[in-house]
Amino acid sequence: MPDDFERMWNDLAPVGRSATSGGYFRQPFTAPEQELRAWFEAQCAARGLRVEADGLGNVVAWWDAGSGPGLLTGSHLDSVLDGGAYDGPLGVVSALAAVDLLRSRGFAPARPIGVSVFAEEEGSRFGLACLGSRLATGAMAWDRARELTDRDGVALGDVVPGGTSSLLSSVGTFVELHVEQGRDLVDRGEAIGVASEIWPHGRYRFEFAGAANHAGTTRMEDRVDPMLTYAFTALGANKQARLAGQRATFGRVEVTPNGTNAVPSLVRAWLDARCASDAELEELVEAITAQSADRAARDGTTLTMTPESVSRAVAFDPALAALVAADHEGGDWPVIPTQAGHDAGILAAAGIPTAMLFVRNPTGVSHSPAEHAEMPDCLVGVSALADTLERLAR
Amino acid sequence: MPDDFERMWNDLAPVGRSATSGGYFRQPFTAPEQELRAWFEAQCAARGLRVEADGLGNVVAWWDAGSGPGLLTGSHLDSVLDGGAYDGPLGVVSALAAVDLLRSRGFAPARPIGVSVFAEEEGSRFGLACLGSRLATGAMAWDRARELTDRDGVALGDVVPGGTSSLLSSVGTFVELHVEQGRDLVDRGEAIGVASEIWPHGRYRFEFAGAANHAGTTRMEDRVDPMLTYAFTALGANKQARLAGQRATFGRVEVTPNGTNAVPSLVRAWLDARCASDAELEELVEAITAQSADRAARDGTTLTMTPESVSRAVAFDPALAALVAADHEGGDWPVIPTQAGHDAGILAAAGIPTAMLFVRNPTGVSHSPAEHAEMPDCLVGVSALADTLERLAR
Repeated sequence: MPDDFERMWNDLAPVGRSATSGGYFRQPFTAPEQELRAWFEAQCAARGLRVEADGLGNVVAWWDAGSGPGLLTGSHLDSVLDGGAYDGPLGVVSALAAVDLLRSRGFAPARPIGVSVFAEEEGSRFGLACLGSRLATGAMAWDRARELTDRDGVALGDVVPGGTSSLLSSVGTFVELHVEQGRDLVDRGEAIGVASEIWPHGRYRFEFAGAANHAGTTRMEDRVDPMLTYAFTALGANKQARLAGQRATFGRVEVTPNGTNAVPSLVRAWLDARCASDAELEELVEAITAQSADRAARDGTTLTMTPESVSRAVAFDPALAALVAADHEGGDWPVIPTQAGHDAGILAAAGIPTAMLFVRNPTGVSHSPAEHAEMPDCLVGVSALADTLERLAR
Repeated sequence: MPDDFERMWNDLAPVGRSATSGGYFRQPFTAPEQELRAWFEAQCAARGLRVEADGLGNVVAWWDAGSGPGLLTGSHLDSVLDGGAYDGPLGVVSALAAVDLLRSRGFAPARPIGVSVFAEEEGSRFGLACLGSRLATGAMAWDRARELTDRDGVALGDVVPGGTSSLLSSVGTFVELHVEQGRDLVDRGEAIGVASEIWPHGRYRFEFAGAANHAGTTRMEDRVDPMLTYAFTALGANKQARLAGQRATFGRVEVTPNGTNAVPSLVRAWLDARCASDAELEELVEAITAQSADRAARDGTTLTMTPESVSRAVAFDPALAALVAADHEGGDWPVIPTQAGHDAGILAAAGIPTAMLFVRNPTGVSHSPAEHAEMPDCLVGVSALADTLERLAR
């Protein structure tokens, strides 16, 4: 079994990898992501799993067994721009390996077990994280989603047929295994953790409009420079979040016209903000926006702030988490919160009892070429997922 | 004659214009700029001017007359990204119209008069302003220039044949007419001014390197976020220049990986700095860099600063400026400095006696779709240029 996991992992390693950074560019519906999807369907076919797809890029492969509501496990195959190998694929490969392990144990599931891949979990192309699971659960309507465009102006409606999804109609429970994206488990000396909750988080587009002008001849006092308002806002957001133990990041910026010798006419920047509670998130974003608007008034620029997506706090089913975490060799697995959004959060919010397993990340680094998990920990993750499925499908 | 200028101006108006912003995208060696060049050569042919081109994108069209060193006038046809209609083309169209006006006056030049178009004056594609005139004067060697790459990685050596230029070998004097890019003339109530000097200026690439990481799960205190170092540097540069009556602009930024939910690994930003003297410019850039390096040390990021081009102060030939400015109907034209770089500065630095005429800009706005000059002022500019050529080629 360990060989199977490693072989699958090695199959995926070169797909969409940048030769310069070593990071991954597996944006949804691009060639590398399509290659991963084809690989996934071939793996499912080789295991005799019944593959179902919707018109939204989501796939579920069923091990038809027993009866009653299905037990689903899986994750996603897309990456952030220049991301790591583990975020997403670890959950998909571990799900396939866990099926193998259950079969090698001679386990006969009392209910169907499905392996899922959700589309555009990272929001790296159409700007909305968990796009596939939002559409599959009905949290987002296709009529709104089809209009989303990528950076080249291509609409989601141009790359997938769309429509409604019935992929989740028979699902009774969802389990997602994921590489940890922080240092909680490594600090605790544990290989596996179970999720208690996902912090509320959102993406907010800040548009700072000024007046383009010549960078040489325009006196500093005559300028209406939106770069200054942006720079002040980025520093202010960082300080606010740092003092409160929250998260605020400006990681994406687009400048118009973006010429060295022109004062910009427009700076667009995206705030990613996350807090322990919905109220704190609202307060943080309000404070950042108010401070930014103040500075805009002083700079003569104008600020338009548009929330692109806001995900409320998700508490995973506590009884399910306790069931998953308890009574293992070496003691219970820790139950810990996460600041990262996941498809599991979308399914939980849609009323599907959901659990998450985390696999230790030795540095906590994620969304980076340096993202890593040790192979022995990954293999512990496969058994942990198989054990969990066994508990839930006995 | 006025009709000719307006007809030519209208010919150019749609070329490379953005339907959304109304600004111009006339980057060197792209389709719009090639169209402008073809238009220019056709206009020269229609006037019986002898067109010479080098392998660097520069063109000179000669009105062969008289004898002795040539008197050259002209400007450039490329624009900044999303720039205005006047910066460059006004000087080229006015030069052609001035030739028409001199001929309609029956003027017989005592020396050849040439009309020139220099390539990539704005540096909007290969990053080096006045690239064509630097190459034509030998201020820059082709072997170094051929390696310059644009944002898509295309090298200059891939788009032009290169080599040395003999276009300027017979030139004794250069006159460039240009739209003013500040508010000096409008404040003085004058339609025309003559340049005294060009401020020294430079472009400096700041590379801030940090560590990519997850925007949600990475605690603020665990981050190495180069966006913060950049933001601090942009605000600091602005303040330094504002207090000293100088210019410092960060108008171009590139973020890697530029994802909403990732702390960036790298922020590249370009500083455009200009001061009244070489010493002040050096001091300003040193102060900005030192402040930035300080902040980088606090952020844990690393700063690499690379000057991409530095142009020393240029004083135009004072006797020539006085000759051009004196004794006009309505009094002398004012002799004023400019903070903008021009091909005229490169030719002057190469030892060619050079003068510049400025045409009033009612708002001072330049490098922007809003850049403007009133048609009556443009026509005054044509006569002023014709008068200047007449004085210099009598």
